[in-house]
Amino acid sequence: MAPASSPLPTLATPGPAPASPALPAHYQAVRAQSVALVQPLLPEDTVVQPTLDVSPPKWHLAHTTWFWETFLLKNYLPDYEVFHPDYAFLFNSYYNSLGSRVNRADRGTLSRPPLADVYRYRTYVDEHMATLLGQLAELPAAATELVELGLHHEQQHQELLATDIKYILSTNPLAPAYLEQSAMPAATTAPADFASPGGATRPAAWLPVPGGIYAIGHQQEGFSFDNELPVHEVLVAPFELQNRLVTNGDFLQFIEAGGYGQFQFWLGEGWDLVNREGWLAPLYWSQDPDGQWLRYGPSGLAPLNLAAPVSHISFYEADAYAHWAGTRLPTEAEWETAARHFGATPQGGNWLETGHFDPQPLAADADPSQCHQLLGDCWEWTYSPYHAYPGYQRAAGALGEYNGKFMINQLVLRGGSCATPESHIRLTYRNFFHADKRWQFTGLRLAR
Amino acid sequence: MAPASSPLPTLATPGPAPASPALPAHYQAVRAQSVALVQPLLPEDTVVQPTLDVSPPKWHLAHTTWFWETFLLKNYLPDYEVFHPDYAFLFNSYYNSLGSRVNRADRGTLSRPPLADVYRYRTYVDEHMATLLGQLAELPAAATELVELGLHHEQQHQELLATDIKYILSTNPLAPAYLEQSAMPAATTAPADFASPGGATRPAAWLPVPGGIYAIGHQQEGFSFDNELPVHEVLVAPFELQNRLVTNGDFLQFIEAGGYGQFQFWLGEGWDLVNREGWLAPLYWSQDPDGQWLRYGPSGLAPLNLAAPVSHISFYEADAYAHWAGTRLPTEAEWETAARHFGATPQGGNWLETGHFDPQPLAADADPSQCHQLLGDCWEWTYSPYHAYPGYQRAAGALGEYNGKFMINQLVLRGGSCATPESHIRLTYRNFFHADKRWQFTGLRLAR
Amino acid sequence: MAPASSPLPTLATPGPAPASPALPAHYQAVRAQSVALVQPLLPEDTVVQPTLDVSPPKWHLAHTTWFWETFLLKNYLPDYEVFHPDYAFLFNSYYNSLGSRVNRADRGTLSRPPLADVYRYRTYVDEHMATLLGQLAELPAAATELVELGLHHEQQHQELLATDIKYILSTNPLAPAYLEQSAMPAATTAPADFASPGGATRPAAWLPVPGGIYAIGHQQEGFSFDNELPVHEVLVAPFELQNRLVTNGDFLQFIEAGGYGQFQFWLGEGWDLVNREGWLAPLYWSQDPDGQWLRYGPSGLAPLNLAAPVSHISFYEADAYAHWAGTRLPTEAEWETAARHFGATPQGGNWLETGHFDPQPLAADADPSQCHQLLGDCWEWTYSPYHAYPGYQRAAGALGEYNGKFMINQLVLRGGSCATPESHIRLTYRNFFHADKRWQFTGLRLAR
Amino acid sequence: MAPASSPLPTLATPGPAPASPALPAHYQAVRAQSVALVQPLLPEDTVVQPTLDVSPPKWHLAHTTWFWETFLLKNYLPDYEVFHPDYAFLFNSYYNSLGSRVNRADRGTLSRPPLADVYRYRTYVDEHMATLLGQLAELPAAATELVELGLHHEQQHQELLATDIKYILSTNPLAPAYLEQSAMPAATTAPADFASPGGATRPAAWLPVPGGIYAIGHQQEGFSFDNELPVHEVLVAPFELQNRLVTNGDFLQFIEAGGYGQFQFWLGEGWDLVNREGWLAPLYWSQDPDGQWLRYGPSGLAPLNLAAPVSHISFYEADAYAHWAGTRLPTEAEWETAARHFGATPQGGNWLETGHFDPQPLAADADPSQCHQLLGDCWEWTYSPYHAYPGYQRAAGALGEYNGKFMINQLVLRGGSCATPESHIRLTYRNFFHADKRWQFTGLRLAR
Repeated sequence: MAPASSPLPTLATPGPAPASPALPAHYQAVRAQSVALVQPLLPEDTVVQPTLDVSPPKWHLAHTTWFWETFLLKNYLPDYEVFHPDYAFLFNSYYNSLGSRVNRADRGTLSRPPLADVYRYRTYVDEHMATLLGQLAELPAAATELVELGLHHEQQHQELLATDIKYILSTNPLAPAYLEQSAMPAATTAPADFASPGGATRPAAWLPVPGGIYAIGHQQEGFSFDNELPVHEVLVAPFELQNRLVTNGDFLQFIEAGGYGQFQFWLGEGWDLVNREGWLAPLYWSQDPDGQWLRYGPSGLAPLNLAAPVSHISFYEADAYAHWAGTRLPTEAEWETAARHFGATPQGGNWLETGHFDPQPLAADADPSQCHQLLGDCWEWTYSPYHAYPGYQRAAGALGEYNGKFMINQLVLRGGSCATPESHIRLTYRNFFHADKRWQFTGLRLAR
Repeated sequence: MAPASSPLPTLATPGPAPASPALPAHYQAVRAQSVALVQPLLPEDTVVQPTLDVSPPKWHLAHTTWFWETFLLKNYLPDYEVFHPDYAFLFNSYYNSLGSRVNRADRGTLSRPPLADVYRYRTYVDEHMATLLGQLAELPAAATELVELGLHHEQQHQELLATDIKYILSTNPLAPAYLEQSAMPAATTAPADFASPGGATRPAAWLPVPGGIYAIGHQQEGFSFDNELPVHEVLVAPFELQNRLVTNGDFLQFIEAGGYGQFQFWLGEGWDLVNREGWLAPLYWSQDPDGQWLRYGPSGLAPLNLAAPVSHISFYEADAYAHWAGTRLPTEAEWETAARHFGATPQGGNWLETGHFDPQPLAADADPSQCHQLLGDCWEWTYSPYHAYPGYQRAAGALGEYNGKFMINQLVLRGGSCATPESHIRLTYRNFFHADKRWQFTGLRLAR
Repeated sequence: MAPASSPLPTLATPGPAPASPALPAHYQAVRAQSVALVQPLLPEDTVVQPTLDVSPPKWHLAHTTWFWETFLLKNYLPDYEVFHPDYAFLFNSYYNSLGSRVNRADRGTLSRPPLADVYRYRTYVDEHMATLLGQLAELPAAATELVELGLHHEQQHQELLATDIKYILSTNPLAPAYLEQSAMPAATTAPADFASPGGATRPAAWLPVPGGIYAIGHQQEGFSFDNELPVHEVLVAPFELQNRLVTNGDFLQFIEAGGYGQFQFWLGEGWDLVNREGWLAPLYWSQDPDGQWLRYGPSGLAPLNLAAPVSHISFYEADAYAHWAGTRLPTEAEWETAARHFGATPQGGNWLETGHFDPQPLAADADPSQCHQLLGDCWEWTYSPYHAYPGYQRAAGALGEYNGKFMINQLVLRGGSCATPESHIRLTYRNFFHADKRWQFTGLRLAR
Repeated sequence: MAPASSPLPTLATPGPAPASPALPAHYQAVRAQSVALVQPLLPEDTVVQPTLDVSPPKWHLAHTTWFWETFLLKNYLPDYEVFHPDYAFLFNSYYNSLGSRVNRADRGTLSRPPLADVYRYRTYVDEHMATLLGQLAELPAAATELVELGLHHEQQHQELLATDIKYILSTNPLAPAYLEQSAMPAATTAPADFASPGGATRPAAWLPVPGGIYAIGHQQEGFSFDNELPVHEVLVAPFELQNRLVTNGDFLQFIEAGGYGQFQFWLGEGWDLVNREGWLAPLYWSQDPDGQWLRYGPSGLAPLNLAAPVSHISFYEADAYAHWAGTRLPTEAEWETAARHFGATPQGGNWLETGHFDPQPLAADADPSQCHQLLGDCWEWTYSPYHAYPGYQRAAGALGEYNGKFMINQLVLRGGSCATPESHIRLTYRNFFHADKRWQFTGLRLAR
């Protein structure tokens, strides 16, 4: 047993970028995107909460605004007056440091303030933020850091807006479309193999990644969440990763082989869950009376596209699929190592422009020796717990509640999805959900 | 104990009145009232369901319309085409005969169809109903009976709309008003003793009612529900009834005497409930930091009016109060006997015109030898189970589910409330709720 | 409808009988019977609680003893020292007046005190009670009344012991017998038609009962519970009652006609319950792989005896059966009137001597013009709520909790069962259970 | 980032030891120990289940026996007849491969088979096992492996017996002792500082462990569970570990500093749990009316011994303590590395002989430069999820359910406790529980 001899060279802890002249414009763009997401909805759609995990869109619009008011305006803009004295109670999400708040389960019972007032709230805060951003250079560095955090916070909620809206509409017996086909940007209408669900699937291939001691965590310039730090070394054994995500077509084979009915592929808690809930397929899948598989998506119910990555599966389903296939899920260290090895770059996240509000079919003619699209199709379940990196310290104050207190009983997901804003995707991003969650754009990639 | 001298003369089972030329106008008026009730709300208010008992206002608007479509138009209007094929699933309330339906607990998760579509649905059905009503004379008597039932059904839902809207707005931390004070009809603004919460209370007095054999049940012309029949005789011992309802001021004495903390006044299940829920006062009561009692009403939070009847109490609270006061609740036979004896006539129900959306203060100068306002202030809990009258038969088909299947574990309430449309109040009306319910306008009158 | 001519003569409120010289012997006999009931069990059987309604037999043995200690010995025997300071906490059932107590749901988690200690407790209390009973003549009348109450209290628990033991053993996958066939008294082994389950059934017949004003409630000498008082008049319309209980054979026809699957026969809450619980037959019924109906009884699983009264059914099932049969359940006033009319006398309750630990087959050759066995086969569900009789007053102190606080959401049962001690059965006895309960010996008799 | 170059030398996968002549004697000794543990109990104690996690002692005695019957006798002893056809249903714990079984929540409702029958079952199986063990040399190696597994399985249940018995007795309001003080072996009566709860505590010290690449997992001869394999390399950074466990005295400081009331020390799910359950101290701690801390142990309630390791804490409490103390928990790789580094050897597990049925006080005069008692005081919570080691494969068949299916949402504990049989403790043993569990002998050791 030889002790390792690989000191990490010089891993300067990356801080925030200096306040950039482009920041006000970026702020406006990010804020506008939240509103754009809700624009296709009716006011009625913005208040309901069909399940505990899902928050009403109106709540997201208000909570993200509350974040700016609470962390920036109240602390750094002199004489700032809050928009409404009760909004701190109404729109605090989970910060114990910031006082009491509406029970999460009650978010869907609150018809007031109306959507119109929430838009007024946004305008009010945005106007004051414009003032603040104009003075940012004179403020402490912490203010600039908080602006960056606030932007990423809002982008996180944009992904939640996408997934929560999808869930809200999907549970309605009328299965309404989020965007009418005609309203979709040209890019998304009728990709050839979307129209032909049986379209050819890019062949899967195993790509080797060499073992070694690697440094994991956020190492370049720019923003990261605190949970991506500190950079630290890990020992990775040689392994292979698949060049593409598991597709709907692949997953259908698992279903047709009886995978949901054979306990030996499942973790015990997953097996209990599957039986208790009667799961027979991923979320949003259904069968018409003829046995044809359908799937709810942004334009309503449509035939299942076999060439698209499977998404909306729990960790239990991902793990069971991998067992059934004789493989396994990668760890997050393996995933990050592979992403660095293959030079992955963010390609997704442009969904608002493209109308890609669902994972797109994998192009059938792609080169199978390449590892495509590690970033931006689906969040990929890893076989790693969401624990603190060695040496991680929670920040003091309310921001210490941002990430650290969730580091138990959840699993890390990597990669970003079709609903993740492009500027929000990073190689080192650690998303996390409980093993039973399915309403996010969650899929899997096999390792061995 | 001398038997009463009121032999029942001829107890013809009362049928519906013949189709009247005024029926189309009455139909329009009733239908318009439902819409008027929702008019002060925002679309967001019409979709939420803060507790299982409460239905979203949008649902009420649609369900009452579904009733006309299902029972009248589909059966009696040739070539009628339903407005939307899925609405039968969405807006059936509880009729097993009519197929599957949305779970009651999920009504508040359904943002679609939007409110605008529900209004379109109402217009579509109203237009077809106008045609049908024009032909009513040529249709079987059953059609006319169903029209009458449909009108009373819609009026029942108008009371539910009032109580459900009140609950929805009251649970919002912003405690918004349903009607701004300025928007209220003149009649309701500032009754003298409403402004002075400690206003004089009409003195309570005991009024004797002679014992005897009385005929109970609907005996005159005009509509009744099937549960008010058959007329039958009951033996009533002599008793006394109070001339007025128990007021907020009376009930406050019970609270201040520690009534909520002394088990000996309570039924066992009530005592468990009070402790489990932490009830310390009627629904909608609260105390400000100075200990001043407030009460949520149609114009928001306001000081408690001591002269108004106590309302929004459960049967358990009514029963505990009566025990504490050394008295009891009347039975429904006693109540109906007394109402006949005192010649009670409906006086409430004009709430939409008057803006009385809450029990009004009892006039302090009223004659205490009279039994005032048996009809139209609050539903009065009786000490009678909601069971079938002797000889009651459920109707065949779906209408057999209207009343009969609920005849267990509920108590009869009599009298009608400030939210009951005046033309809907009857001496023989049997309302019914479970003993723990408080969101209706429920109060009590003492007997001994 | 002519009023009946039975004016109530002089309704002296019946008090307890004077302390009789036979009381010590009766005390001993009743106390011995509780022990005898538990004698066939193993210590392990005496501690478990498979469902909330069921109490462990050990608890019954201790609780009945606690009753004597608490109400008699502590109050009337000078210098009495309690057996153990913690037993008041452990074995109080539901008396708020007497302080805190073990949660009902936790009775089955208490292995200590062991059964042997509970027997020691019984002996200790019995010895002191012998002393007290010797002095009873010198004590206030209240003491004698409490002794009578204590004896009836213990007899109530003997019936609960029978039903709870049955439930405990029945839920065990081994379905053990309570009494081996060989251990049963001769009287119970092999009644002819018990051995032949398809045995002839006594024909049902309708027996008329004249209408009138009748006095209801406990009117003769001797003990009654407070809920059987005051005597009061009721108006009863003429009706007919069946000469016998509904049998297993009758009920099987309801099952085979699909009665459990047709909502129109059911009360709404019953229909929900049946579907939620998956009920397809009375409690303790099962089908073997060949479809043969079996029923768990005191000697284990045995073929269903068609000639025995159906028992272990909920009110919902009784009511649905009656609807299906085009009839109804009697009210408790009708039942008591009929019992007086037919001169019913207690015949059951001798089950401990006879080993009849289950309703016995109805003799096939009985005279159908007679109303057989109103008392002592099964508790008969009535269509009457368990409410206070007019003028009822709860007693002061702990005994006020004996009956009064349960007077809501339950139904009255009349008649007594095969598990009711004979000296405990009365014409005026008001038993009460919630509509969903099935573990008592509950059956039905039809009225119309 | 240099790839590591440290190939693991030759890590032969350790198989079971060859069948030893001492095996029959060891079998008898292990089996006798299970019975000895239950011997101080009454039959009543052996059937109850006060919470879902706890199984009745009778069930443990039967389930361990079922294991031998199912995996050994039925497969390897020709013509073996099962003791009872229903026991497979009654005493299967969680093996889906082996058919249906009693719901875990219902184990405490089963009074039958009685304890006496379970002892007969044990005798029957032991006699047949004696025959089988005599033939072991002629049987396939798999049989010998199964015998070893069966012995360790039984030892696991011995620890569960200890913790479940403790829980059962502790929840009884009488707080009975498991062993009377007089019945305890001399070794356990009155250790000096047990009698004086404020006794001196061994000083804590930080001991450094060098970083490096280490091989983790079972590497020597002899038995291990499959979850301790495969041996694999991990990269461990230099760290320090405390020389001793956190004591009751240490933990009391956390309590007195308000640790249970300050969210910032807690994981979010832990904070919710603490508030929902009202936890204010470890399980089994209570305060007498004078504020004196007591603790339930094998001889009943006793003053808290400050010098003993804190035990019966959840992961959340361990983690919160570590945060409060400005430190952290070790990972399992760190723990195993340290244990190898310090040459830890099993010292606990002799509790049945010594009567040490609780963690013993840490000797005050111990050398603080030594790392004492890594094995055998308390299971030490680590900051590592219970996941599969890289390359782990579940076995085929029922044994594949032994460990693998539990590898989610649990944390690894290391070290063994006072209730772990000595021959069952290993350096590489991976125990696992959910983060909220407290009824095991769980404590913590700090790292940094």
